[in-house]
Amino acid sequence: MQLGMVGLGRMGANMVRRLAAHGHECVVYDRSADAVAELAKVKGVTGASSAEDLVSKLTPPRPIWLMIPAGVVDHSLAEFVPHLKSNDILIDGGNSYYIDDIRRSKDLSPKGIHYVDVGTSGGVWGLERGYCMMIGGENEVVQHLDPIFQAIAPGPGDVPRTPGFDNIGGTAEQGYLHCGANGAGHFVKMVHNGIEYGMMAAYAEGLGVLKGANIGKHTEEIDAETTPLRDPEHYQYDFNLPAVTEVWRRGSVIASWLLDLTASALAEDPQLSKFSGRVSDSGEGRWTVKAGIDEGVPIPVLTTALYERFSSRGLAGFSDKLLSAMRYEFGGHLEKPATK
Amino acid sequence: MQLGMVGLGRMGANMVRRLAAHGHECVVYDRSADAVAELAKVKGVTGASSAEDLVSKLTPPRPIWLMIPAGVVDHSLAEFVPHLKSNDILIDGGNSYYIDDIRRSKDLSPKGIHYVDVGTSGGVWGLERGYCMMIGGENEVVQHLDPIFQAIAPGPGDVPRTPGFDNIGGTAEQGYLHCGANGAGHFVKMVHNGIEYGMMAAYAEGLGVLKGANIGKHTEEIDAETTPLRDPEHYQYDFNLPAVTEVWRRGSVIASWLLDLTASALAEDPQLSKFSGRVSDSGEGRWTVKAGIDEGVPIPVLTTALYERFSSRGLAGFSDKLLSAMRYEFGGHLEKPATK
Amino acid sequence: MQLGMVGLGRMGANMVRRLAAHGHECVVYDRSADAVAELAKVKGVTGASSAEDLVSKLTPPRPIWLMIPAGVVDHSLAEFVPHLKSNDILIDGGNSYYIDDIRRSKDLSPKGIHYVDVGTSGGVWGLERGYCMMIGGENEVVQHLDPIFQAIAPGPGDVPRTPGFDNIGGTAEQGYLHCGANGAGHFVKMVHNGIEYGMMAAYAEGLGVLKGANIGKHTEEIDAETTPLRDPEHYQYDFNLPAVTEVWRRGSVIASWLLDLTASALAEDPQLSKFSGRVSDSGEGRWTVKAGIDEGVPIPVLTTALYERFSSRGLAGFSDKLLSAMRYEFGGHLEKPATK
Amino acid sequence: MQLGMVGLGRMGANMVRRLAAHGHECVVYDRSADAVAELAKVKGVTGASSAEDLVSKLTPPRPIWLMIPAGVVDHSLAEFVPHLKSNDILIDGGNSYYIDDIRRSKDLSPKGIHYVDVGTSGGVWGLERGYCMMIGGENEVVQHLDPIFQAIAPGPGDVPRTPGFDNIGGTAEQGYLHCGANGAGHFVKMVHNGIEYGMMAAYAEGLGVLKGANIGKHTEEIDAETTPLRDPEHYQYDFNLPAVTEVWRRGSVIASWLLDLTASALAEDPQLSKFSGRVSDSGEGRWTVKAGIDEGVPIPVLTTALYERFSSRGLAGFSDKLLSAMRYEFGGHLEKPATK
Repeated sequence: MQLGMVGLGRMGANMVRRLAAHGHECVVYDRSADAVAELAKVKGVTGASSAEDLVSKLTPPRPIWLMIPAGVVDHSLAEFVPHLKSNDILIDGGNSYYIDDIRRSKDLSPKGIHYVDVGTSGGVWGLERGYCMMIGGENEVVQHLDPIFQAIAPGPGDVPRTPGFDNIGGTAEQGYLHCGANGAGHFVKMVHNGIEYGMMAAYAEGLGVLKGANIGKHTEEIDAETTPLRDPEHYQYDFNLPAVTEVWRRGSVIASWLLDLTASALAEDPQLSKFSGRVSDSGEGRWTVKAGIDEGVPIPVLTTALYERFSSRGLAGFSDKLLSAMRYEFGGHLEKPATK
Repeated sequence: MQLGMVGLGRMGANMVRRLAAHGHECVVYDRSADAVAELAKVKGVTGASSAEDLVSKLTPPRPIWLMIPAGVVDHSLAEFVPHLKSNDILIDGGNSYYIDDIRRSKDLSPKGIHYVDVGTSGGVWGLERGYCMMIGGENEVVQHLDPIFQAIAPGPGDVPRTPGFDNIGGTAEQGYLHCGANGAGHFVKMVHNGIEYGMMAAYAEGLGVLKGANIGKHTEEIDAETTPLRDPEHYQYDFNLPAVTEVWRRGSVIASWLLDLTASALAEDPQLSKFSGRVSDSGEGRWTVKAGIDEGVPIPVLTTALYERFSSRGLAGFSDKLLSAMRYEFGGHLEKPATK
Repeated sequence: MQLGMVGLGRMGANMVRRLAAHGHECVVYDRSADAVAELAKVKGVTGASSAEDLVSKLTPPRPIWLMIPAGVVDHSLAEFVPHLKSNDILIDGGNSYYIDDIRRSKDLSPKGIHYVDVGTSGGVWGLERGYCMMIGGENEVVQHLDPIFQAIAPGPGDVPRTPGFDNIGGTAEQGYLHCGANGAGHFVKMVHNGIEYGMMAAYAEGLGVLKGANIGKHTEEIDAETTPLRDPEHYQYDFNLPAVTEVWRRGSVIASWLLDLTASALAEDPQLSKFSGRVSDSGEGRWTVKAGIDEGVPIPVLTTALYERFSSRGLAGFSDKLLSAMRYEFGGHLEKPATK
Repeated sequence: MQLGMVGLGRMGANMVRRLAAHGHECVVYDRSADAVAELAKVKGVTGASSAEDLVSKLTPPRPIWLMIPAGVVDHSLAEFVPHLKSNDILIDGGNSYYIDDIRRSKDLSPKGIHYVDVGTSGGVWGLERGYCMMIGGENEVVQHLDPIFQAIAPGPGDVPRTPGFDNIGGTAEQGYLHCGANGAGHFVKMVHNGIEYGMMAAYAEGLGVLKGANIGKHTEEIDAETTPLRDPEHYQYDFNLPAVTEVWRRGSVIASWLLDLTASALAEDPQLSKFSGRVSDSGEGRWTVKAGIDEGVPIPVLTTALYERFSSRGLAGFSDKLLSAMRYEFGGHLEKPATK
């Protein structure tokens, strides 16, 4: 079946490759003409030079998949809508806020244009592994796109079937799921990423404790500002972190794909010296917290994981200064200089 | 090779079965004579009726593996030591605090008895999957026990090799690792469990947000005590949690064994009605926090995950009453009755 | 000067009393005719029977102060606006979300009606102590209302002047402050309440630790699920919490008005037996978190304090069940029954 | 009455001045002969040149108060004990871990030497305001020292009496309290400081949110890594933090001594430019967390406040690098450079 793909970055281009490999016909567009030309070399892929051009090269009803930064989706929709007709389908496969999906589907509805939101997980590995997709939209429209989702999804692979799967059924086992009405796909993806933040923080904090387990080997001065380590003999371990993460990959309760990636990064460089530790956050973590608060569901672990990223970027600076200022005011405590 | 196994609960008995299947000769002891008799039916397994009896049935140097609650290890050691000789080996495969390992190995050293601490992960699934082992002790002693560890461990299985594994080498890929001197095994296992708490909390909180995503369907009264939900139309989703956890198992960034288990539990009963939500904690989480504090490594996610378990058991009760009392004092706020 | 007061609950009625005592003329309205009649007995206070009646009894430009739940402010504004003229002033003294203030002031602007948002702190003690006010709105309008604010505010009282106050100046020392444009008053009040949550949690948690300091006196069973308390001799204290909070009131770094109230509550009943520990949250805490997230400012302490309130009301229930379900799946762990 | 004071830093010297002003006779000792000479100029104060000298200048039973860093108390005790006799009293007024108090009192007991632990709050302001004291030790010994405590304590001052104080009675109203057996004083002081961490964090975080309330004025670039601020018009406030903290001092629910100090620091320099934001922690916060964990009392707010201090000193560095490494592995995300 036909699909228009807009945005040929890491993920968009690889999706097109998977689709073409499954025999689907793709028309592709990107702001970069080079990216279009490169991908148009693949069999079954046609390049387009503009929104209008892409639309004209597809047969109605046209499914057009946007794989672009969330911040420019509204702009891109405005480019396409004038060229579309009733029953055409716009698919947002990026990381939009689900609240925008609800708004957009309402705005497009009077024109008869359908909107589908697809949360996509898989990162740079999707070409090889396939992409896990969480989908929101109208039943018939999502059903219509099923061949597309099937081609992009990982399929069951060699992941063992869940006991009791007969109670679930459906496409979940294939790696894609129609989660509900518009916004449902990005809602589930949002929470997925919120969980991801929490899991990443769990590994990072735990490995930080292992890394610090040799602190008893360092001598420390005694002063009134800092309590000395009481039992330095309990912290004499120099752990081999690449080996530890490797052993956890086999049979342990905390085995996961994120752990595989962590082991891989540590195997390459146990000191991670090419990273400075400034950790970005891309929206879903923030939105997950707002959803938890609106619902009254306590999510301190996910929230704290988000805040760790803020702090890693130095955003706690003024609050930290205030703490120092208070300590100076009541106790005359001076800040200690940074140690290298 | 020979091994004495003490404690024939879920994990101890299954380890003996794995060892026997690999051709090792086991002498087993448990407070329950029935458990001993049952396991002695397995080929290669001999029952013992007491600590002394178990020791007498092994040829020096004897390796004796304790697979018993951490709280009774010292008691059990006291039972065995009088019957042991120099070069015998006591192995603690349970969940001891690594600080106890350091003490015990020092206490046993003058008698020439060796001590090995083994953190073991795998739960009820170990018989089938093997047990991931984190080991602390003297080099030669751990080396001597290698055939035992090899039999209990999962082996590489079908887990893909980590890129860059050549930089790691050793036994990690087999699912067991000599982590360092005495206590190192349980230290790494402690942190492993700390991470486990964090990951579990991440999934539990995220799924809680999905569960609450239909809150906009419930009407809420307006009063001065509670802010109304501003946008009920954003919370109209009834998510199918078994299907969502299932789809995440394939290709998503948060795939893991814990997720497999979660999907399995939800497939069986999406409401989890047989659980009340009182969550135990068994020590390692607490110790991980203490280690993080001693090291000065911030671990708010792991700590908060621990505290969620405390709260789930009602342990925040007095603090909560204090909050209500303060609100009453400054604002005349009365507590709202529990809603069903 | 004249003021219309709408909403004669705890705070509204007491403000009218303070205003009347300062010689201001008040026209008052409430859904409860009894409340109106009761307050109209005070010298200088006139009752009104409807929005229209209240408006008709004031001379333009009319300042009308709403002291009503945030959830009904829009409804009340709709009642008043048809009767108002250009240059009349609507004041929201309740706990509105500052984002609503921004919207309302924009909506009212074409009609020439001014809007002022006033965050008010003081609780049930305001009649005696005065109310601390944080004000948002246009400069001239706020300036015009200065006599009103002066009457309601505490004034400098016997609080010592801040060293360096000359660098600040203005009305802050009187207990009221024009914080900025529309919304600024409720923004500052929102953060004020966020801080309040954090401080309350700090006291509540700390006193919870003091309360639990006798845990070493209780015997505990040993099992594989729970780690025993290692050093019961360290937890043998039965602290007198009323006396402890009392002593902290004098000279300690943590002295505060919230501590005064806590000491008072504990003096009356050290067990706080009339409270169940279900703690409400009224909006500002939630909004503070959303603001912190939008700004990228990490506020884990304030957020965690909010979540403690959610948990106190049983809102973590499904997440807790998930944790139990996972523990059962990987370890066969059964939940322990609640202990009384 | 007589008292030996050891350690003439900020707090020790000021305590001697308060004692001398109340007519008590002090013999003082410090490693710095200059400090001794300086204080010996005060009427009623005698200098000593060594531990032995100090002991010889007091009449048995001698009370000797140590006001020195917690890390050197054991060393100092070892210096004094050989010169003491049965019924002499050693008082630790510093920030010792209460567990050390329990040990020390046991060790000194066979010699008939009494030990008293005194947690002291008041910082650099104690000379003027008096010190709030939390005391642990034997009833008769604490009773014997009552005149000393009375002189050092703030007394009731102008703090209003707590309603229901008749139910409390005792010395709490004077600003000192015998909390229980040995260790009880430092236990209560430990929790006091834990609460202090939480309160300080509450103010610091909240003020951080106010500081960031103008973020909508800054333009932000759109990329796939960062979600743009959705409603910049909601974050257009430039708050006057010195004025805001000042207004909260009067009549608000969050008024406190820490707020007074914060207002003072901000009045002097609203940017706090002389502070870098590296915040020390001196032991009690860490111990409070360990106590909460041992007791099973959840204290996430206090713990998170402690971790914020760790993070402010850069101690989360390796964990942050791990997060960046994971993001790079699964998504090819590159770290964004620090912005100035």
